[in-house]
Amino acid sequence: MAEPISPELSKLIHSGSLKKSPMKSQFETFCMQVQAEFCRALEEMEAKYSDEVDESKVARFKVDRWLRPEGGGGITCILQEGSVYEKAGVNISVVHGQLPPAAVAQMRSRGKNLPSNQSLPFFAAGVSSVIHPVNPNIPTIHFNYRYFEVEVPADPKNPEGKAEVQWWFGGGVDMTPYILHEEDCRAFHQLLKKACDRHDSSYYSKFKKWCDEYFYVKHREESRGIGGLFFDDLDQPSPAKVFNFVQDCAHTLVPSYIPVVDRRARVGYDYNDRQWQLLRRGRYVEFNLIYDRGTKFGLMTPGARYESILMSLPLTARWEYQHQPPPNTKESALVDILKNPKEWV
Amino acid sequence: MAEPISPELSKLIHSGSLKKSPMKSQFETFCMQVQAEFCRALEEMEAKYSDEVDESKVARFKVDRWLRPEGGGGITCILQEGSVYEKAGVNISVVHGQLPPAAVAQMRSRGKNLPSNQSLPFFAAGVSSVIHPVNPNIPTIHFNYRYFEVEVPADPKNPEGKAEVQWWFGGGVDMTPYILHEEDCRAFHQLLKKACDRHDSSYYSKFKKWCDEYFYVKHREESRGIGGLFFDDLDQPSPAKVFNFVQDCAHTLVPSYIPVVDRRARVGYDYNDRQWQLLRRGRYVEFNLIYDRGTKFGLMTPGARYESILMSLPLTARWEYQHQPPPNTKESALVDILKNPKEWV
Repeated sequence: MAEPISPELSKLIHSGSLKKSPMKSQFETFCMQVQAEFCRALEEMEAKYSDEVDESKVARFKVDRWLRPEGGGGITCILQEGSVYEKAGVNISVVHGQLPPAAVAQMRSRGKNLPSNQSLPFFAAGVSSVIHPVNPNIPTIHFNYRYFEVEVPADPKNPEGKAEVQWWFGGGVDMTPYILHEEDCRAFHQLLKKACDRHDSSYYSKFKKWCDEYFYVKHREESRGIGGLFFDDLDQPSPAKVFNFVQDCAHTLVPSYIPVVDRRARVGYDYNDRQWQLLRRGRYVEFNLIYDRGTKFGLMTPGARYESILMSLPLTARWEYQHQPPPNTKESALVDILKNPKEWV
Repeated sequence: MAEPISPELSKLIHSGSLKKSPMKSQFETFCMQVQAEFCRALEEMEAKYSDEVDESKVARFKVDRWLRPEGGGGITCILQEGSVYEKAGVNISVVHGQLPPAAVAQMRSRGKNLPSNQSLPFFAAGVSSVIHPVNPNIPTIHFNYRYFEVEVPADPKNPEGKAEVQWWFGGGVDMTPYILHEEDCRAFHQLLKKACDRHDSSYYSKFKKWCDEYFYVKHREESRGIGGLFFDDLDQPSPAKVFNFVQDCAHTLVPSYIPVVDRRARVGYDYNDRQWQLLRRGRYVEFNLIYDRGTKFGLMTPGARYESILMSLPLTARWEYQHQPPPNTKESALVDILKNPKEWV
């Protein structure tokens, strides 16, 4: 695990007083743990299936720490052109500062009770990842878990009003297969449902639907992939309980993805499979650059670290005019599912 | 030249009465001529430099006619995986119908004097093209010329008010080199300046600057390419005079681009040049999907023909995390120019 972004966190971790510390510190630690665990698990697969005879040449994650001039920073771990992963990125960021009025307005528009026309102090921490494997039999996976705090000052016109901190969690995970293995999709959704059901029996169906709606390429009228979970603004029943849920979700990452990598890393594929994968990656780029709120919001932020934001883009992508997979092929079967999201559990 | 989109146009062309016909018909004819001439000139280069021994196998444009259910249609000409062009698209569209209030509001916001909160009948015709060549010594070229009419009904509250038709032209052309040949950039801008100067001595510097500002990848703080011309809302001094200017601009396309293709088609390049080209194509995708108004506006339109809109995307593109060309290389020299647009004339 890397050194934390926030200097005070080192002390908390080493003194063993983390559990009693503020959620900000607990969540930053969680992000670092998720990053470290997921990177380690991915690297094990790379080592297992690497074409390199010389062990020292096996592709590994490069760790890139960066600071945000306005406050905070992040750690981007990236592995490119491995034997298993064409491009794999796992990023954490822990930022704080003033949320500009335009960003506050955007939050108000989705229902947050925040005062208008003023900047507000904020804290945001998150871990996110996109893994684009070499073998088209292994799906791309994406996840993101984040925690947000906004300080709302006391209303001077209201003598009983007090300053308050609004907090919420968001996140999700979704898979994008190229060559569909239904067994992998079912296992993935089953693990997600199990994690959800431990906390609220309504979560899985609600967040699965939200995911299908969110990762939708409108102009093509098809989903980006086979979905997963997506949620935002989760601020009930309590910080500790939501955090527990988020941790449970994150703990499904290794058991839901790594066995898929392990199972499919040596499955054969041909030139056509690779071309199809590149075309589907073009669709992935379309979603991320046209629709994804995180990408858009990120790039519009002055001083944004665009390299970490655009780490989600594949190493290579392809666009052919009016490409249509022939009917009754495995490619057309995938498109059918993308056009009509199905229930996997 | 293909059959026109508008049925009444065939008659006008064959009866020889086109010059006296409405601008709508004249402009549609112009679009078709530009498409036909440019495609023919591009195909000549493909034939000259094709690797195919069998002439019948030389890549040619495929012509794809499409109708828009809401009114009008278009003709998309596309050539993929040729010897000279990796992907070349030349598209015309001629559409009419009702402009929804949201689109009217967008036009009002950029200064158009149009009534709010109502749909307005409109007509729009345009020709646009993006050519992505195989050889990184040949730049990508993009152009677009368009004509717009909006019918504004008489204001019932104003007894002197009359119904009117608002019209304007827009367009431009720009080049995106991979391996920079300054001679090509200078010749390109010189031809553009000459075309502009014949009409208004202020046009070239004004429209060159507009182009530099428009084709700007904000998050990377660099231009998409070496610019050219860009203008919009041109509605003075008269339809005939602006149309003359637009025609003059369009007539520089073949003489400014085809000699570059001819000069560079056999220039050698290596693996690194190709990788650099793919990375720059990634930037091209970023501009088109994140910033380009035409693409965004197009994709948000219900029933949009996204295949024709996305024809501008390259066949292949590449994203590497934090790629930086080494200093004092031809790649870094290009980036310098993209970060500091220069005067070529």
